Amino acid sequence: MKKYNFYAGPAILPVSVLQQAQEAIKDFAGTGLSILEISHRSKEFVSVMEQARALVKELMNLDNTYEVLFLQNGALAQFHMVPMNLLNEEETAAYFDTGAWAHGAMEEARLFGKVHIACSSRNDRYSYIPEAFTLPENPKYLHVTSNNTIYGTQLQFPLSNPRAPGVPLVCDMSSDIFSRQMDYSQFDLIYAGAQKNIGPAGTVLVVVRKNILGTVRRSIPKMLDYRQHIDKESMLNTPSVFAVYVTYLTLQWIKQQGIQSLEQQNKMKAQMLYEAIDNSTLFEGTVAKENRSAMNVCFHIREAGASSIELETRFLQFAGQRGLVGLQGHRSVGGFRASIYNAMNLEGVTALTQAMAEFERQL
Amino acid sequence: MKKYNFYAGPAILPVSVLQQAQEAIKDFAGTGLSILEISHRSKEFVSVMEQARALVKELMNLDNTYEVLFLQNGALAQFHMVPMNLLNEEETAAYFDTGAWAHGAMEEARLFGKVHIACSSRNDRYSYIPEAFTLPENPKYLHVTSNNTIYGTQLQFPLSNPRAPGVPLVCDMSSDIFSRQMDYSQFDLIYAGAQKNIGPAGTVLVVVRKNILGTVRRSIPKMLDYRQHIDKESMLNTPSVFAVYVTYLTLQWIKQQGIQSLEQQNKMKAQMLYEAIDNSTLFEGTVAKENRSAMNVCFHIREAGASSIELETRFLQFAGQRGLVGLQGHRSVGGFRASIYNAMNLEGVTALTQAMAEFERQL
Repeated sequence: MKKYNFYAGPAILPVSVLQQAQEAIKDFAGTGLSILEISHRSKEFVSVMEQARALVKELMNLDNTYEVLFLQNGALAQFHMVPMNLLNEEETAAYFDTGAWAHGAMEEARLFGKVHIACSSRNDRYSYIPEAFTLPENPKYLHVTSNNTIYGTQLQFPLSNPRAPGVPLVCDMSSDIFSRQMDYSQFDLIYAGAQKNIGPAGTVLVVVRKNILGTVRRSIPKMLDYRQHIDKESMLNTPSVFAVYVTYLTLQWIKQQGIQSLEQQNKMKAQMLYEAIDNSTLFEGTVAKENRSAMNVCFHIREAGASSIELETRFLQFAGQRGLVGLQGHRSVGGFRASIYNAMNLEGVTALTQAMAEFERQL
Repeated sequence: MKKYNFYAGPAILPVSVLQQAQEAIKDFAGTGLSILEISHRSKEFVSVMEQARALVKELMNLDNTYEVLFLQNGALAQFHMVPMNLLNEEETAAYFDTGAWAHGAMEEARLFGKVHIACSSRNDRYSYIPEAFTLPENPKYLHVTSNNTIYGTQLQFPLSNPRAPGVPLVCDMSSDIFSRQMDYSQFDLIYAGAQKNIGPAGTVLVVVRKNILGTVRRSIPKMLDYRQHIDKESMLNTPSVFAVYVTYLTLQWIKQQGIQSLEQQNKMKAQMLYEAIDNSTLFEGTVAKENRSAMNVCFHIREAGASSIELETRFLQFAGQRGLVGLQGHRSVGGFRASIYNAMNLEGVTALTQAMAEFERQL
C-alpha cells in the first residue's frame, strides 16, 4: 500500500533523494566505498560539505558576512549555544514565548544572562501568536521561532512591530525553513534541525552573521563556540557525514523545485486542508486562523468529552488503513497534526481530505 | 577493483551491515517508510534504540548501575561534557596526556576545574605511553584514552599502577571499543565516537555509572546534562536516527562474531602487519613496540630527508592502484597509518603486506 507520511519530524523526504542516498551507501561518488565508511577528509566528502554550505547561502541569497555551518545535536543544542555565544551575564535577551520549544530556548538563556519575555501566549496553550511585542532597553538580541511545530502556528515576516534598529534577530526556523520566500538577510542567526524540510535527523543547520560574534567574555568549550566551527569550515571534528550528504541532496532538490514554486504548492496544500477542516462539522482547527501554519496543520474532533477521544482513535485507524501515517498530534496536545512539508505533494493532502470526508460520512 | 578501506574513521563497516542499512533506506522494519523519514517516536525506532542500549550493556557485561546513551557531537563534545558534569571549580581531575585528543580533553577540563597531568609523552611527540603516572590528592576522576588513533599507541588494562581506590575512571575508547575483551566495570564513564569500531559518523556512545553524577553545583544546559539524557532514555530530542540504527546493526554483528574471536583476529592482523614492517628495510614503525596499537598501525619510510617524502607519495599511489585506500598518516604526523578495525579482515591486511613487499622489491 502506498504510504503518505505526515510525521512532524523526522519527516517525508523527496523520493529522488532517498534513491540517491541508497545508491551512495553502495558506492559514494564513484569511490567504490560506501558513504558510511569514507573519511570526512576525503576530497569527495569535503566537496559535498563545501557545496552544501554554498547552496544554503545561494538559496538564502546571503553575502559573505554570513557563515553556514552543519553542526550536530539538533536545534535543542542551539538553545544554549545561542546565549553562550551572544549573551553576557548582565545583558538581556528578548524571547517570543510562542510554544514549548520557544519557551525551552528562553529557559536555557536564563543560565547565561537576563531574559525579557517579548510576548507570550503560554496561558492560552500557545493557540495563537500575540500581535504585539515589547523589547527591553538595549536587548542583546531578539529570539523568535518562525513556526511552532507542536501547535501549528506560524510567524509572518517582517515582524509587525517596528524593529529596534541594530538588535540582532535570531530565529529557530526548524519546521519551515525554505518553505516560503523571504528576505533572509533580516536575520542575524538562523538555526534549523534538518529533519523536517531539509534532510534526515542528525544535523542542524546554523547560519550566522559573523559580526555578532566575539562580544561575550566567558570561556566557551571548543565544540560550543561558533567561531571554532567557522575557522574549521564546519569540520572541527567528524561531522555527521551521511546526514550532511542527504541534506545536501535535499537542498539540491529544493533548488531544482525553486522556493517560489514550493511556496505556491505549500499554500495550495494548506488551503485545501484548512478548507476541509473548516467545512467539516466533525473536525475543527485548534489555533487562531490568522496564525495558522502552512507546515503543521493541527485539528481535532469537534465534539467534546470521552466520545471525541474514542473518535480520534477511530479516525487514526481509519487513516492508517488508507496508508496515511503520522497524523497523531504531539503527545502534549493530542488531536491530529498533519505535517505537510515541502516534500509532501498534493496527492497526499488530497488523500487525507478524502479520508476525512469519508470518515465523517460513514459515522 | 576491490577496495580495502584503511581509513582511521569514518572507517570500514561489515558488508552485511551496509546491506541492511541500504535496505532500511527503502523500507525500514516493514513500515513501508524509509528509516530516513520515520519518526524517532515510532514504535519501530524506539525498539531499535532500546535494543542498541541493551546490547552495549550485554557486550560490556554491565549491571543496572550503568546507563547507556547514544548522543551526538562526537567524542570531542565529551571533552567538555565530562568535566561539566563531574568537576567543580575547586576540584582536580587527573589526565593522561598521551596524544592530541587526550591533550584536547585535558584542555577543556581547565575551563571547569583544576587539572593534574598524571603522565605525558607530549615532548616525545606522543611516541609512547609512559609506564608510571601520578595522582593528586583527592582527584575527582582520572581520564585516559585507551587508544591514540593519530600515533598508534594503545593502553593496556588494568592500569599498571595501583589505582587509588574510589577514583572514578573515565575512558575515551573511540578507536578500540569492542576490539578486545576487558573488564568494562573498571570504568565509571566510557565514551566512543561510533565511526571507528561500532558504526558510521553521527553518534557517540556514552556509558556512565549513575552514582558518579549529581555532585557538581553549576547549572548545566539541558542537552549537556547526562542526567537529562538518562531520564529521557536517550531521546531528550530527536536522536541521530540513522546513525543509531547502523550502530545497532554493527553491535549485532559484533555479538554474532563474539568479542573473543574479534580480539583473536585483531591480534593476528596486527602481528602480521607489524612483522611485515619490522622485517622490512624500507618501512619502520613509529612508536614504542610495547605500546603498539592493534587498531592503528603507524609506520613510515625508514630513509630520512626529502627522498623519503617522495617515496611515501609513491607508495600511497602504488597502494591506491591495488585498491588499498586511506593509508595516509594523520596530517599532523605524516607517514602511513593502516587502521585495521574489527571489520577489516585478514585478506585486507594480507593485500597490504603484499603491496609493501612488492613496492620494496621493485625499488
